[in-house]
Amino acid sequence: MSPLKILITGFAPFGGQDLNPAYEALKLLPGVIEGASVVKAELPTVFGKGAQVLRDLLAAHLPQVVLCLGQAGGRPGLSVERVAINLKDAAIPDNEGNRPADELIRAGGRAAYFSTLPTRRIVRHLQERGIPADLSYTAGTFVCNEVFYSLLQYQEEEGTGAKGGFIHVPYAPEQAANFSPLAPSLPIATVAAGVELAIALMVNEIQEG
Amino acid sequence: MSPLKILITGFAPFGGQDLNPAYEALKLLPGVIEGASVVKAELPTVFGKGAQVLRDLLAAHLPQVVLCLGQAGGRPGLSVERVAINLKDAAIPDNEGNRPADELIRAGGRAAYFSTLPTRRIVRHLQERGIPADLSYTAGTFVCNEVFYSLLQYQEEEGTGAKGGFIHVPYAPEQAANFSPLAPSLPIATVAAGVELAIALMVNEIQEG
Amino acid sequence: MSPLKILITGFAPFGGQDLNPAYEALKLLPGVIEGASVVKAELPTVFGKGAQVLRDLLAAHLPQVVLCLGQAGGRPGLSVERVAINLKDAAIPDNEGNRPADELIRAGGRAAYFSTLPTRRIVRHLQERGIPADLSYTAGTFVCNEVFYSLLQYQEEEGTGAKGGFIHVPYAPEQAANFSPLAPSLPIATVAAGVELAIALMVNEIQEG
Amino acid sequence: MSPLKILITGFAPFGGQDLNPAYEALKLLPGVIEGASVVKAELPTVFGKGAQVLRDLLAAHLPQVVLCLGQAGGRPGLSVERVAINLKDAAIPDNEGNRPADELIRAGGRAAYFSTLPTRRIVRHLQERGIPADLSYTAGTFVCNEVFYSLLQYQEEEGTGAKGGFIHVPYAPEQAANFSPLAPSLPIATVAAGVELAIALMVNEIQEG
Repeated sequence: MSPLKILITGFAPFGGQDLNPAYEALKLLPGVIEGASVVKAELPTVFGKGAQVLRDLLAAHLPQVVLCLGQAGGRPGLSVERVAINLKDAAIPDNEGNRPADELIRAGGRAAYFSTLPTRRIVRHLQERGIPADLSYTAGTFVCNEVFYSLLQYQEEEGTGAKGGFIHVPYAPEQAANFSPLAPSLPIATVAAGVELAIALMVNEIQEG
Repeated sequence: MSPLKILITGFAPFGGQDLNPAYEALKLLPGVIEGASVVKAELPTVFGKGAQVLRDLLAAHLPQVVLCLGQAGGRPGLSVERVAINLKDAAIPDNEGNRPADELIRAGGRAAYFSTLPTRRIVRHLQERGIPADLSYTAGTFVCNEVFYSLLQYQEEEGTGAKGGFIHVPYAPEQAANFSPLAPSLPIATVAAGVELAIALMVNEIQEG
Repeated sequence: MSPLKILITGFAPFGGQDLNPAYEALKLLPGVIEGASVVKAELPTVFGKGAQVLRDLLAAHLPQVVLCLGQAGGRPGLSVERVAINLKDAAIPDNEGNRPADELIRAGGRAAYFSTLPTRRIVRHLQERGIPADLSYTAGTFVCNEVFYSLLQYQEEEGTGAKGGFIHVPYAPEQAANFSPLAPSLPIATVAAGVELAIALMVNEIQEG
Repeated sequence: MSPLKILITGFAPFGGQDLNPAYEALKLLPGVIEGASVVKAELPTVFGKGAQVLRDLLAAHLPQVVLCLGQAGGRPGLSVERVAINLKDAAIPDNEGNRPADELIRAGGRAAYFSTLPTRRIVRHLQERGIPADLSYTAGTFVCNEVFYSLLQYQEEEGTGAKGGFIHVPYAPEQAANFSPLAPSLPIATVAAGVELAIALMVNEIQEG
């Protein structure tokens, strides 16, 4: 049997920031986790384009597990998202200046998709290992949510049988220090450790059937 | 000229926690910072005793700079305290079960002492180097504040000419993960890096006159 | 043409509280708002039963607009919910001791329904009139969300053409004072004024076509 | 015996706001509370001038109790201040454009004064009557703290035997609605009810000896 393939994505920095802690954490991940091979990719923080790049990656790599990562400044730990909704509404412009207001991601599409990752077990696994983590019931309405929605829609419509989900991560300390001294933050290495633990859990669950 | 001597203290864990991130950070500090020698000590988290142990250390070591560190769960970064007040009031028992309510630390003592460290420059220095930090105008009314008040009182009354101050530090991630998933946290290594930067700044300022 | 009929519901107190500010606010509403007749009802804070009582009310009264109100301690203003999800998960027991964990509200049901009220216009209308209000993208996973989901499901499946939505309200000041001194709160009269403004806006929009 | 005289002050609006909820609440107070006569005054939100107007009022009216009120946007309830510190540092300009940075209020003055009001009993009294209230250990470093410090300094230096204190109040709902939808707020009438309860408590304590 060929090894599992895991696709992990992060986003380009946005909102005037120099870095995106989700993508920086992704870079720190090893290429193989519990025997599964890890494919890493950066998505543009642009409505429409982020989701299109993701679909191209899904078609090219046929991963069995897909985990998208994004920055959610203000959250204190790894925020494991349970649900993606069919709505785009941008409080700030994306990286090409788009600012949709109360639009559907896909006309006629479902109102929402649930993550197909074991979200609660991931949260418990991380907490037991000392990584701050929590379940979240809103991934917002920016590009992160659009990519998350598009991922789950693709996986269901294509019948890939693959699993998909999204984790939001806090600011890196250097972002909080510079922009928002009262916001919580976690070092990128801590975030990467948490993401690696989450992936290891999922790989082991799949391999144990 | 003999090298500067810096005394850094942390507290024993309290409130049912297994560790105190302030003391754990202290353990990670090098023995020499910018040429100054660093003396480390743990204080008991007990009203009266913490301050007495500190006074004994001050008399024994004659440090030119004293920095006390304490845990302040819920704060997002290194919280550089500006003022210690003559008040003890405990929301939880200390490590020997004492729970003073609205008592003076010292009858007839001053209402407050200001930190004699360069608090604002420390905050700016840390922020510029990517460590979340902020000025704080209340060190609370628990053992931390009592030790801080006692330090400044001692230094003034003894006319030591030494500098003294206090920094509160956030939960470690493992504390937040276990006890308070929505509380901010910072790894002990990040806290230690910030404390070392603060000390280096002070040593350099003193040496440059 | 017969006048519009509006159904407004609140919940029984739960979680050991003596009152539910949502239901108390509802009691203060007039029986007629902008010419529309207002039907008020209390729902049990019990999984399954709350939704069943609501469905009976919908069948009995045939309202053209339905607004359910619920308490969300910790929120600072009227929190206009945009989306109900097919999930029940209770951090505390309901009023009959049920505590579902990660269950579907309806097997085979949609993942989510969007509010059919003009949520953003309601928020803006309230803010312009001095009532703190905000859009929310999660109504939680307790009985509130189940009732909200069941409302929208019923209205769609029955093809009633009616509008439905949910507003979460903050603690009353007496709740915050007694239970949670650091939680935000708003008096019940302020909440009622906001709810009445929201209803008036909707009635006027419907009457103006 | 002549009746007690109570001086209550509020501040002019500042920071671009149209109203100051502390002063608006003051306007709602009755002229007599538990037999004590209430003198009301507005202070300019200007460093130096606010304190000077207060001193003139103290000299003119010889009040036995003085309560200064100020706005502290972001706090959820009546915040009864325990300590005023000898420091001015302005994050925003006052109403005449002054922006002191790390200056003493009074060179050679004490580091701090404690409120001489029964702060903890006030908090408990308000909470028991359903008004959100909490003790605070920092009145900030803006004009509010300067007036608070100057009040306590005057009362001590003049040996008036009078009591003095400060209560910070939250945003009014219309301020939160317009400026800061996620900030807590309380209606001015609720704030006024809390202030009246606090004054009644103090008057009764003084009259009962």
